[in-house]
Amino acid sequence: MAEAARRARGGGGAARRAERSAISFETARYIERNIPNFEILSDEALEIIETNAETILEEIGVNFVENPGALALWREAGAEVDGERVRIPRGLARKLCETAPSSYTQHARNPERNVVVGGRNLVLAPVYGPPFVRDVEGGRRYATMEDFRKFVKLGYMSKWLHHSGGTVCEPTDVPVNKRHLDMLHAHMTLSDKPFMGSVTEPSRAQDSVDMCSVLFGDDFVQQNTVMTSLININSPMTFDDVMMGSLEVYARNNQACIISPFIVGGAMAPVSVAGTLTQVLAEVLAGIAYSQLVRKGAPVIFGAFVTSIDMNSGAPTFGTPEASHITYGAGQLARRMGLPFRSAGSFCGSKLPDAQAAYETANSLNLGLLSGVNFMLHACGWLEGGLVSSFEKFVMDADQLGYLHHLARGVEMDENAQALGAIREVGPGGHYLGCEHTQANFKKAFWKSDLLDYKPFETWDDEGARDTQALASLRVKKLLGDYQQPAMDPATRDALDAFVATRKAASPDSFM
Amino acid sequence: MAEAARRARGGGGAARRAERSAISFETARYIERNIPNFEILSDEALEIIETNAETILEEIGVNFVENPGALALWREAGAEVDGERVRIPRGLARKLCETAPSSYTQHARNPERNVVVGGRNLVLAPVYGPPFVRDVEGGRRYATMEDFRKFVKLGYMSKWLHHSGGTVCEPTDVPVNKRHLDMLHAHMTLSDKPFMGSVTEPSRAQDSVDMCSVLFGDDFVQQNTVMTSLININSPMTFDDVMMGSLEVYARNNQACIISPFIVGGAMAPVSVAGTLTQVLAEVLAGIAYSQLVRKGAPVIFGAFVTSIDMNSGAPTFGTPEASHITYGAGQLARRMGLPFRSAGSFCGSKLPDAQAAYETANSLNLGLLSGVNFMLHACGWLEGGLVSSFEKFVMDADQLGYLHHLARGVEMDENAQALGAIREVGPGGHYLGCEHTQANFKKAFWKSDLLDYKPFETWDDEGARDTQALASLRVKKLLGDYQQPAMDPATRDALDAFVATRKAASPDSFM
Repeated sequence: MAEAARRARGGGGAARRAERSAISFETARYIERNIPNFEILSDEALEIIETNAETILEEIGVNFVENPGALALWREAGAEVDGERVRIPRGLARKLCETAPSSYTQHARNPERNVVVGGRNLVLAPVYGPPFVRDVEGGRRYATMEDFRKFVKLGYMSKWLHHSGGTVCEPTDVPVNKRHLDMLHAHMTLSDKPFMGSVTEPSRAQDSVDMCSVLFGDDFVQQNTVMTSLININSPMTFDDVMMGSLEVYARNNQACIISPFIVGGAMAPVSVAGTLTQVLAEVLAGIAYSQLVRKGAPVIFGAFVTSIDMNSGAPTFGTPEASHITYGAGQLARRMGLPFRSAGSFCGSKLPDAQAAYETANSLNLGLLSGVNFMLHACGWLEGGLVSSFEKFVMDADQLGYLHHLARGVEMDENAQALGAIREVGPGGHYLGCEHTQANFKKAFWKSDLLDYKPFETWDDEGARDTQALASLRVKKLLGDYQQPAMDPATRDALDAFVATRKAASPDSFM
Repeated sequence: MAEAARRARGGGGAARRAERSAISFETARYIERNIPNFEILSDEALEIIETNAETILEEIGVNFVENPGALALWREAGAEVDGERVRIPRGLARKLCETAPSSYTQHARNPERNVVVGGRNLVLAPVYGPPFVRDVEGGRRYATMEDFRKFVKLGYMSKWLHHSGGTVCEPTDVPVNKRHLDMLHAHMTLSDKPFMGSVTEPSRAQDSVDMCSVLFGDDFVQQNTVMTSLININSPMTFDDVMMGSLEVYARNNQACIISPFIVGGAMAPVSVAGTLTQVLAEVLAGIAYSQLVRKGAPVIFGAFVTSIDMNSGAPTFGTPEASHITYGAGQLARRMGLPFRSAGSFCGSKLPDAQAAYETANSLNLGLLSGVNFMLHACGWLEGGLVSSFEKFVMDADQLGYLHHLARGVEMDENAQALGAIREVGPGGHYLGCEHTQANFKKAFWKSDLLDYKPFETWDDEGARDTQALASLRVKKLLGDYQQPAMDPATRDALDAFVATRKAASPDSFM
């Protein structure tokens, strides 16, 4: 990291205390499930998949591309290395994965926003990666840094979102080799929720670590996890040097990574659910084992990004039953490894935030909760197969995440919840609206959407007969209008600004 | 039944053979689940609810209104009758329920469309009851018999719909005391799927039985179940004479009824999930016990229509987490009684078939599959809290039912599904699109929507950038344009026509 920046940060403790007393918007605590996971695979089926995954690793192997360091680590660990192909003896990868923690805390600059990833928890983070944005007024267009900042603000204002995410859209107006600096700067200064680091080059991963050292202090970063970043595997069974290089930076610095096969079923994996699960497991075993070769105990997440394919058009399809099968199964496999699990999201193929988008998204969100996902990237705002970050869909999905929170609470069974007194009081033919039990409990009894329309038809019609997209458009404007930046120690802010300026000045712009 | 009509029917066997060879549209077999149910309540919680439900029946009791016959049956069975209040000694209702079958076959006039209700099956039936219809062209308006016929045709054409339903909308242009005749006539002649009978008066239930005798033959109806009808309980704990009178007609004739508390939580039941489940169970126990007092072995379904309430507007709300909790719990209670379970549906509060409608509906459809529902009424077409049958939403929801079918299939684990050969063939860095395993399996591998848009953005944009509602509107027109009436023996058709004409002529029109 830049020495000047680190020094400039000054008294971290005082700054953190100042932040804690600043104006802030309500954010729900991450979900702690009080309902079971839904498990569709039998133990026998899971064992078949696990056995076959070991067969893949042992007999077929995986490729670590342009990465002699990785090959050396694998050779040393006992794998058979042939060119870039790494064949891993049965059981070795699983053994290496044992040093990965079953859960970890990702720290936010506001400690109230820290998240614990793993166990029965579910942490929700927004859409990641789209080069386009869409809203009602502007239609579909290339994303800019100004769009990016708006999404970070919306994420900060969203009660049910625990995490600020990473590339909430690609700021295409900023040079490729510098946009990670602006993106991190936005997450760090416009929100106080936890965030993700850059993975598009190992040097950018290092910049991410260094900026975190400015924000949190050098010692704090070395002793704590302050980023969870997304490492995709090039399925089938290929680990490229860019992603692995970034993983190496993060693992060495004790920062968390999602290690995630990126699969369009039928293209990057077999068309069958069992075959895809087998490949997913083999890839994750190899990837997580590698993270532990880099640094024993580095925090990682068992990832599975899965879609199916429309065999007519070749387009990926979302919210489909086969993707659901795979996600449920992958959750079971992750739990058998004792690792946090990432999957699901606000996935849809629709071009608009319409009914198709909502059906597909709701299928995937429900699935995400019930399959035991611990970290849900893309939990809101995803549109058009991930090509578009939608402003309206961001707030629509973010509202639905409230449904997940309440569903996860499970059912209270104490005497008040049993309500036998109320049933006795009201009796046959009565009604509960006025009874004491209702008065005492109604405020907390039901989840209420902050967005959807519950009004009588006539009122709704008088107000312009607005559909969900129109209501969402209003909510986007309201949230952005109400937005107030969370307080930050000015010295830290100056140091972050200086870090970004210095790094930007150090190299020419590149849009490649 | 009308003697003339029965005689006119003539050779039933020949007619049924003729029907079997007629042109027909593909209908999927009812869902036979190969995935587990999702259970959120512990055994201990279930026992608390069961104990409390017995306390309600014993100490508070239920009202059978204006029904001396029912009171006599209850007294004879050992209940304590005080005015219209029936207090049922602990254990008696559950004991009486034991004679209800755990599953039953509902016959359709086309035997290929018979459904088995119970066990691990899920039978899907369309929306029931709305006085309004809506479509893109005509907006929201009172429903007519012509609308009704269109919905029956759409149901017949919908691959994933196993059942023609009942009051798919209220034909408000037909006198109240005669519309059941036209509705049944439409189900019987425009579709060959199973259907529901009238419950708005005991005499109309009898008309329903008599029309079935014309369609199926008198003996067949007495020996088989050919209708599943909807008996709502006036929650809390009130059994009115109209609904019970209809139940009596159906039970005596061995016809099936859904016995269903109709609950807006916070109004007709306590605001708490546990309290609502307790009341639901007490009501269902009393209702089903009564059906068995009328006729031991009469087929019945444990019903639970549950919504929550928006405490600001008083409006019922749909697709909410509390309704989900109740439905999951009610499924567990029904299974412990060994009875078929009815709940869930395409529920939504939205005024339009937009994203709100789809989120809420998808939440409920997913829930319906996972909670073990055996008979899902309202599985498609429900809009605006049940006030509106939507043409577009009918086909949108009906398409999503395909997702449920495929999800329910579970995961194949045979050698072909394991696909280890394909993974070996493709290897690291390859792709699966051309491989032999993909070619051999892709056609059956993925569920494909018949409605949703999977096209590339540019194609979609060139074609008019249509949203889901616009695509659905086209599909409605296509299906109605392609519709062909299933064949029917002319003598049967004449007899049905004559029955309706005779019954209509027998009394003056009434719109009350």
